[in-house]
Amino acid sequence: MSVNQYMQELGEKARVASRYIARADSVKKNLALLKMAEALDESRQALIAANKVDIEHAIVKNIPAAMLDRLRIDDAGIDKMIESLKQVASLPDPVGSIDDMRYLDSGIQLGKMRVPLGVIGIIYESRPNVTIEAASLCLKSGNATILRGGSEAIHSNQAIALCIAKGLEQAELPAEVVQVVSTTDRAAVGKLITMTESVDIIIPRGGKGLIERISRDAKVPVIKHLDGICHVYVDAQADLQKATEIAINAKTRRYGVCNAMETLLVHRDVAVPLLAQLCELFGQKSVELRGCERSRKIVPQLLIAVEEDWSTEYLAAILSIKIVDDLAEAIEHINHYGSAHTDAIITESYANSRIFLREVDSSSVMVNASTAFADGFEYGLGAEIGISTDKIHVRGPVGLEGLTSQKYIVLGNGEIRS
Amino acid sequence: MSVNQYMQELGEKARVASRYIARADSVKKNLALLKMAEALDESRQALIAANKVDIEHAIVKNIPAAMLDRLRIDDAGIDKMIESLKQVASLPDPVGSIDDMRYLDSGIQLGKMRVPLGVIGIIYESRPNVTIEAASLCLKSGNATILRGGSEAIHSNQAIALCIAKGLEQAELPAEVVQVVSTTDRAAVGKLITMTESVDIIIPRGGKGLIERISRDAKVPVIKHLDGICHVYVDAQADLQKATEIAINAKTRRYGVCNAMETLLVHRDVAVPLLAQLCELFGQKSVELRGCERSRKIVPQLLIAVEEDWSTEYLAAILSIKIVDDLAEAIEHINHYGSAHTDAIITESYANSRIFLREVDSSSVMVNASTAFADGFEYGLGAEIGISTDKIHVRGPVGLEGLTSQKYIVLGNGEIRS
Repeated sequence: MSVNQYMQELGEKARVASRYIARADSVKKNLALLKMAEALDESRQALIAANKVDIEHAIVKNIPAAMLDRLRIDDAGIDKMIESLKQVASLPDPVGSIDDMRYLDSGIQLGKMRVPLGVIGIIYESRPNVTIEAASLCLKSGNATILRGGSEAIHSNQAIALCIAKGLEQAELPAEVVQVVSTTDRAAVGKLITMTESVDIIIPRGGKGLIERISRDAKVPVIKHLDGICHVYVDAQADLQKATEIAINAKTRRYGVCNAMETLLVHRDVAVPLLAQLCELFGQKSVELRGCERSRKIVPQLLIAVEEDWSTEYLAAILSIKIVDDLAEAIEHINHYGSAHTDAIITESYANSRIFLREVDSSSVMVNASTAFADGFEYGLGAEIGISTDKIHVRGPVGLEGLTSQKYIVLGNGEIRS
Repeated sequence: MSVNQYMQELGEKARVASRYIARADSVKKNLALLKMAEALDESRQALIAANKVDIEHAIVKNIPAAMLDRLRIDDAGIDKMIESLKQVASLPDPVGSIDDMRYLDSGIQLGKMRVPLGVIGIIYESRPNVTIEAASLCLKSGNATILRGGSEAIHSNQAIALCIAKGLEQAELPAEVVQVVSTTDRAAVGKLITMTESVDIIIPRGGKGLIERISRDAKVPVIKHLDGICHVYVDAQADLQKATEIAINAKTRRYGVCNAMETLLVHRDVAVPLLAQLCELFGQKSVELRGCERSRKIVPQLLIAVEEDWSTEYLAAILSIKIVDDLAEAIEHINHYGSAHTDAIITESYANSRIFLREVDSSSVMVNASTAFADGFEYGLGAEIGISTDKIHVRGPVGLEGLTSQKYIVLGNGEIRS
């Protein structure tokens, strides 16, 4: 069978299974999740053995250490997967919830009922735990899923797939509700993202290259998470103590995450006192600082920031710093160079906070809070399948609701339209 | 200048203008709408003269009468455009509205603010009034628009474009907020739907052929409105009086609309009394009836419905009728042959109404009400740019909200993440 045929069949099976899972009640879905957790727990040896095969191949292939790290499954990793399954099981079921029910003049009662999207295709790279995360969130939101992990994790993913299948079986749900692609042929991805008949949405998880490639070639709609070039703007009317704490937190809490600050914008009026204090603190944490010309006049030891710095997601202990004349320049800079992910203003000015909230066009816009809060768990979504930097369908952290749609429901008593 | 260059420039100007209009307050936007209405009123002669040129070309080209009818602008048509502008001006502004504001455990306050999508491309056919409808809804929702009407309406659309430009100018808004494509070259559409840098969403309005073609070739996300193969299912426990009234209303209120019933499904237990009565009433209205084998045993004069009938949107005085054994068969039929637009059950059974509401996968699902209610005005949206048969981004009638997205906003007091 060709890869295209194989994927075609996977898609058709997923479409059929999506009808079952859309109707399944919460009890059954939660049972499947908990049984998957049990299966993982019972399969620790098999999982670690399968993962060892992947790791050995990866070492032979000279794969970078960071990637190896993401690929590895140990007992603690399995514990985390089990935990995440239990957590998703404990979340409220979004499917069937009804909003905005109201009577209209014609006598009909109108509302919106939340429904699954149908079939979700997930394309990811080397982290095998994504298999569990994605499967559990899609299942709980009533969707069928086709999962395509990186080829370097194929043995790990197949071992996890067995546990998922066991859980579905024990809850008497069709095995095709979650299908893990078993071929490492790259053509499988190309096919998956064009199967508009059988796939409703594609969620790529991974580096910018992967996501751009998929967005370019996909025929199926894509929920994109591109880069996180996040800004903190310290206003003329900022509380400098808050500004300092937030800037340090937003940059140094974790470097490799998309909600970390990459550029600090400072109003000229507060640049001298703020930068003196901040540069010392960043220095203690060995953060490399690159500044604009004006900031280098205040702190001469700053490296030179070049044009490219303003549109770079460092994901590292590097920060670019720019002094601006006013709020308008800060907003202009953010909307121009940013990635519409998360941006914060530090200010005690009511008027400036309102302008910033309204005019910054990002998925999360914050006042006097650290960009590090932009996260599904922190936002109370319970779990997160990614952060959408798109405006279509869903924006910002994507939880269970982001994997659903709403249909109108009308309750009448024989009404006809005149 | 090539068509591609021309469209590219249009896109870039729209992107710049979108930032202005996103920030414009309601007063300014409403002023522009009302000034457009004034301009239309003052330009009646010019509009009708421009339209006459299109009509004459169309007659030479032997365009069908129905299309000619849609193309024509008369005084009553101008009145309607003026009315629709006033109505959109009177609607609440969705931009900036904040939902779900709440405090989280970390101390931050989280909510969602409604924001424009950015730049919307509208592609439509011969009706020039769409120029006004689309421009007004996109403007009110804070978006910049690129409008591409059918080549047969080019003179009418350019005359309307002048009125739109006047309105924008008098409200001191950039002219590029609404741009009407001035070339009839088809390559303009091909370019428009692939300009992912400058266009955020495409809304095609017109026949199925147009929409399928655009969906197939677009790189920009598309809000689709495919066909309306709407069903009314009369359950065993239906009130037959209600069933009769609703069936007649759903089919005969207007034939050429997407929310008209195309197939009547009848539970076998009520087929004899219902069909006897209904067929007589439909006969009086000269509706052509095509039945399944079983229904033809009850009403022998029914024409034979063939397989193709179940998936045909007649948009005409034709109805297909099928007798089913139970609710499950009805739902199966709807989900298989329907177009996920609007479907209704007529029943007095609480249990059956719940199953139907949950399991029918359509943008509007109704109990004891006519499918004719599936409409933006009836749903209280105030206006409608189309009905989405998609599940992504927006489903069902699309009003101002459907042309917006939501961003997260976070209000803090110096919180950092641990």
